[in-house]
Amino acid sequence: MTLEIYLADNSPPTTVCIRRVIPKSIYPKFATNTSAMRRFLLSALALTLTLCANTAFAQLDQLMPVPLSVQPAKGKFRLKDKFEVSIRQKEPTRIDEGAKRFLQRLDGRTALNIPDYATKIAFPVDGLNIIVNRNGKLQLHEDESYKLQVTSSRIMLDAETDIGALRGLETVLQLLSVDEEGFYFPACKIEDAPRFPWRGLLIDVCRHWQPVEVIHRNLDAMAAMKLNVLHWHLSEDQGFRIESKKFPMLHQLGSNGDYFTQEQVKEIIAYADARGIRVVPEFDIPGHATAWFVGHPELASAPGPYTIEKKFGVFDPAMNPANETTYKFLEIFLAEMTALFPDAYFHIGGDENEGKQWDKNPEVAQLKKDKGLKENHDVQAYFNQRLLEFLTEDGKRMVGWDEILQPSIPTNIVIQSWRGKEALKKAAEAGYDVMLSAGLYIDLCQSTAYHYAQDPLPAELQLDKKAQGHVLGGEATMWAELISPETIDSRIWPRTCAIAERFWSAATVQDVDDMYRRLPKVSRDLEELGLMHIRYADVLIRRMARSENTLPLQTLRAVIGPLQGYKRHGQGIAYSTETPLTRLPDIAIPDPTMPREFAAAVDLHIAKADVMQSLVIRNWLELFKNNHHSIEHQAETAPAMRAVLPISQQLQALSVVGIGLLDMLEKGEADAQRKEGYQKTITQARTPVQECEILIVDPIQRLFEKVYGK
Amino acid sequence: MTLEIYLADNSPPTTVCIRRVIPKSIYPKFATNTSAMRRFLLSALALTLTLCANTAFAQLDQLMPVPLSVQPAKGKFRLKDKFEVSIRQKEPTRIDEGAKRFLQRLDGRTALNIPDYATKIAFPVDGLNIIVNRNGKLQLHEDESYKLQVTSSRIMLDAETDIGALRGLETVLQLLSVDEEGFYFPACKIEDAPRFPWRGLLIDVCRHWQPVEVIHRNLDAMAAMKLNVLHWHLSEDQGFRIESKKFPMLHQLGSNGDYFTQEQVKEIIAYADARGIRVVPEFDIPGHATAWFVGHPELASAPGPYTIEKKFGVFDPAMNPANETTYKFLEIFLAEMTALFPDAYFHIGGDENEGKQWDKNPEVAQLKKDKGLKENHDVQAYFNQRLLEFLTEDGKRMVGWDEILQPSIPTNIVIQSWRGKEALKKAAEAGYDVMLSAGLYIDLCQSTAYHYAQDPLPAELQLDKKAQGHVLGGEATMWAELISPETIDSRIWPRTCAIAERFWSAATVQDVDDMYRRLPKVSRDLEELGLMHIRYADVLIRRMARSENTLPLQTLRAVIGPLQGYKRHGQGIAYSTETPLTRLPDIAIPDPTMPREFAAAVDLHIAKADVMQSLVIRNWLELFKNNHHSIEHQAETAPAMRAVLPISQQLQALSVVGIGLLDMLEKGEADAQRKEGYQKTITQARTPVQECEILIVDPIQRLFEKVYGK
Repeated sequence: MTLEIYLADNSPPTTVCIRRVIPKSIYPKFATNTSAMRRFLLSALALTLTLCANTAFAQLDQLMPVPLSVQPAKGKFRLKDKFEVSIRQKEPTRIDEGAKRFLQRLDGRTALNIPDYATKIAFPVDGLNIIVNRNGKLQLHEDESYKLQVTSSRIMLDAETDIGALRGLETVLQLLSVDEEGFYFPACKIEDAPRFPWRGLLIDVCRHWQPVEVIHRNLDAMAAMKLNVLHWHLSEDQGFRIESKKFPMLHQLGSNGDYFTQEQVKEIIAYADARGIRVVPEFDIPGHATAWFVGHPELASAPGPYTIEKKFGVFDPAMNPANETTYKFLEIFLAEMTALFPDAYFHIGGDENEGKQWDKNPEVAQLKKDKGLKENHDVQAYFNQRLLEFLTEDGKRMVGWDEILQPSIPTNIVIQSWRGKEALKKAAEAGYDVMLSAGLYIDLCQSTAYHYAQDPLPAELQLDKKAQGHVLGGEATMWAELISPETIDSRIWPRTCAIAERFWSAATVQDVDDMYRRLPKVSRDLEELGLMHIRYADVLIRRMARSENTLPLQTLRAVIGPLQGYKRHGQGIAYSTETPLTRLPDIAIPDPTMPREFAAAVDLHIAKADVMQSLVIRNWLELFKNNHHSIEHQAETAPAMRAVLPISQQLQALSVVGIGLLDMLEKGEADAQRKEGYQKTITQARTPVQECEILIVDPIQRLFEKVYGK
Repeated sequence: MTLEIYLADNSPPTTVCIRRVIPKSIYPKFATNTSAMRRFLLSALALTLTLCANTAFAQLDQLMPVPLSVQPAKGKFRLKDKFEVSIRQKEPTRIDEGAKRFLQRLDGRTALNIPDYATKIAFPVDGLNIIVNRNGKLQLHEDESYKLQVTSSRIMLDAETDIGALRGLETVLQLLSVDEEGFYFPACKIEDAPRFPWRGLLIDVCRHWQPVEVIHRNLDAMAAMKLNVLHWHLSEDQGFRIESKKFPMLHQLGSNGDYFTQEQVKEIIAYADARGIRVVPEFDIPGHATAWFVGHPELASAPGPYTIEKKFGVFDPAMNPANETTYKFLEIFLAEMTALFPDAYFHIGGDENEGKQWDKNPEVAQLKKDKGLKENHDVQAYFNQRLLEFLTEDGKRMVGWDEILQPSIPTNIVIQSWRGKEALKKAAEAGYDVMLSAGLYIDLCQSTAYHYAQDPLPAELQLDKKAQGHVLGGEATMWAELISPETIDSRIWPRTCAIAERFWSAATVQDVDDMYRRLPKVSRDLEELGLMHIRYADVLIRRMARSENTLPLQTLRAVIGPLQGYKRHGQGIAYSTETPLTRLPDIAIPDPTMPREFAAAVDLHIAKADVMQSLVIRNWLELFKNNHHSIEHQAETAPAMRAVLPISQQLQALSVVGIGLLDMLEKGEADAQRKEGYQKTITQARTPVQECEILIVDPIQRLFEKVYGK
């Protein structure tokens, strides 16, 4: 019965590797029966794949992000439950607590009872030795480099700053390897430093509220991936999410009660600081500001009253740039917020103000006349200019989206480029510091490979040295229209690991297959920090299926993805902040593993008529074909699953076609009678259902063309 | 292939029920082959079981805790995405936010897009109508009753207080039912009120720190189960877990940095209040107080210095009852804390002070002499008397463990009985208000049935009416020696659902099988509130197995349990606050479902030679037998799993024996040669491994005796 277990376990194998010998214990009773023999072969293959996926002995090739230089050496530092850490530093630094967290994770991961978190006075010890020269400052361009040497007798981690040492500790954890004797760290010499100084993740807590614990656990994951900026998107049309003591109606009326108190903000900043992560707040103005106007309609360019926006999109309300009250208000407000956030940078948004309210407002018309402002863009530049004065007075550097780039604005601001690389180039060449977010909108559910290819400094831009120096890095952006605290982690991770590698590792680290090879382990390791991106799906499935049996929907989930880009919004549901996010597109994840593996197997089979690949393909297709029955059965007593039936049926039909095509390939004859029907089924399988799409249609189409010709 | 899917899915069926017709679609190709036929039968059976487990049409018999009275009626209130809620009340109450949370959960559970959380002015609406007479006070004996009537056109929920209405909303959610057309609420008339006014859960945040989100989600679960007191155990030898502004060294030196700020405490009290839950803090003194003495050694009865205790047990340090400084300190401290916690009750612990420091302290000797105190118990009574004065001054009623009951203490305090029911009886008859915790120590991993049987007012105590009136209810106690934030939920839930029913429902609700029948659905429903008790296991398994494939350990986990009582402490590991809680006993849960089902199947088979039961038994044993190979394979690349091998091997050997016994039963002949070996294997299987035990040894022993005689 062991044989069937893997077939039913839909965790797809991560690498196709058949070198391992199949253990004797799995040769069972079926040996004389042909059909059973085929089943056995299938199963043995699957088992082999699993074994290979699990086989990750020395971990030097598992690091993510890839360090600047890794030199393997001979030997193993063997981990035992007597493992000491010694820290040499001049004063207490972040590494004291960092080393404790490191040991807790090492304990948890190994289940070894390492007895004492206390750091030792002796130096060096036959364990982990950390040398820190100074306390790092949480600021752009701070030294985050480290050197690491593992020998069979000790580990030496050497860093200029405690922040660099924290980065190094994450590498040490990733080095943890196993062999017959147990856990060890492979001997090696690593030198490492980041390529870009600004490596961020934006979290929008406005469209859907994200409570403190979501921020906490994502800060942990960011630290694990060597990201160093949390860009905290705190105000939007749909919510004003931070307590203002100066203007309490902002959060009291501008939110549904879900906002961060200033105590919580301080605590989160301290939490991030302890992990070497800067916190840059964003207050998006003059547009995207409806929630401000619920409590303060006097700030808007049209009279109001206003209510918190529940829908998504670009809305008309915008601050009144022609009223001095607005500036008085903002001056006080910004003074309050700049005092709360210690970082030197402060983000004022500035995107997507379409100026419709401005066009209708006579005060704005008068302002244009008075100040000689031709277009609304000029008005916004004037507005930003005024903000810039306040921020400069408060000791901050201004950051904003592409739109804030106007000739009249001095170059000591930072442009966050979301419109495209040309915008980034333009800004950098005009002498502005810039960072990239175009192509890094992780809410759009695009592939990891797509994001991995987004280089803040792509060769094709042909930036000169000076302009290159203005490119600070980039940020992945987690916009929150379609995420809840339950699902958010699955939209950020593990894809953002690849983005983090793009920001940290050398430009030459570009092997997509190798990235995908390393991703599953890194993803799994993020769980120990509390990340929900793997476990969340069973939770939603149990709720939808009203059952402990999550297998049917997990199986379906392996082969579908939520629609990419903005397509989910055009499928019949007018999303609002109140729409439940417990449906199939929330259970599905962007860029699942199985379809990639499947496509690779199909292509190999097409190219080489590879029997093993044929078995892999057939294995999956049989599983999907039969899975539809299970889905149907569960749907009888689970109404929320009934909406899933059409896509499951499409998949079943597609699988039957795939199996038919495989049969024809094996026999070497194409059944002309079935051609038309097959093509129709394949085409039909491209229709999105429940905002999801089947991700193996293309390879089946290729099989079809192999059989019938193009 | 559908057939095998269930075999590999180790979620055990929840009820053995074979009434459902097996759908035709699952009759496949195997029909001519005998071995295949047996496999098919097995699978069909398993599938049948799954279908039955999923079948939960009308939900009137799924309520937990069982209401006082439930009358079914004819008709169904059909749920559509136009579902309005109307509230009739004189002023804003907790039900406004409560109804929003209700709708969010209903949305999430049904995936229906119920468009508007806003409550309607019209009354009644063709939806849910809530009538609240007044704002409830968060105090003992407050009215928590409600009446609920569901007809095919509307739902009426009527309550004296908003707290009663919140309780009723939980019942409405549990009533959600399904049929072919979709979701509905079955027509019915329910009248409900709690049996006991004090229905609590103690959470120890000291032995292992539990952060804010753990408290939040457990408050949600408590509300779902109609519990109404969070007993917050805030100080211990292992940590002082709350900020004191008067004596900041208490939390600064008495914790490792993990404590609740007063802001967080206020927020948690508000969170509990919104759910109709009182918060009673406990500061355990004079013993259990080592952590206080790290910053304030002057309070102790021996000079110090002190460090935070890392081990577990009963320790010597105790407050100095003979020094007026102690009382001065406590007066100020208690004034601070009683002002922070609004509840009328305040817990001062008082347990397990063995008085060793007192015996050696000449001041205490002098105190005894001066005050005529004979024993240490009298000294503690004197100490408590002093505390009582402070608390009375602060407007609080004192609560403490059994030990604080001394003749000299007036009867206006509350005794929490942990030593046994006799202690409870003694206190109640002496005129003290009492509540039960004996038998409700959920950290001890005992069975749900055991806890379910612990009645705060058992008939055998023969309390008179007056004494009965002193029994307020009880509390489940989540002591934290062996739990982490990852595992805590799995130790509280779902067993505490049964305890909640004991506290709320009539004394006559005692059907253990029926409780077990209702438990899995309630348990699953708790997940929507964020509880981790189901999902946590895969997280630990992936870490231990270093693989996405959680099936082998999930299979093992179905049939084992952590050792009960205090036995985990005697198995080789000297637990401390630093021991990793990521091992097999942390993955195993108390009282899993499968062994109960297995024992029932065995007993039925023994009694009636039931073929279907025999198949069920064989199915499980085959699974366990083969599972060991999978465990072995995973252990090759996962050293933390190697400690699991012995118990997996024991289970394999036991399964082989079980299969052998089944074969003999079928043939009707006992193989005398195997008798001795079989008995040895069965006995061997009782040996605990990794602080876990196999839970199907007894039924296998019974099979053995059926075959070989006693």
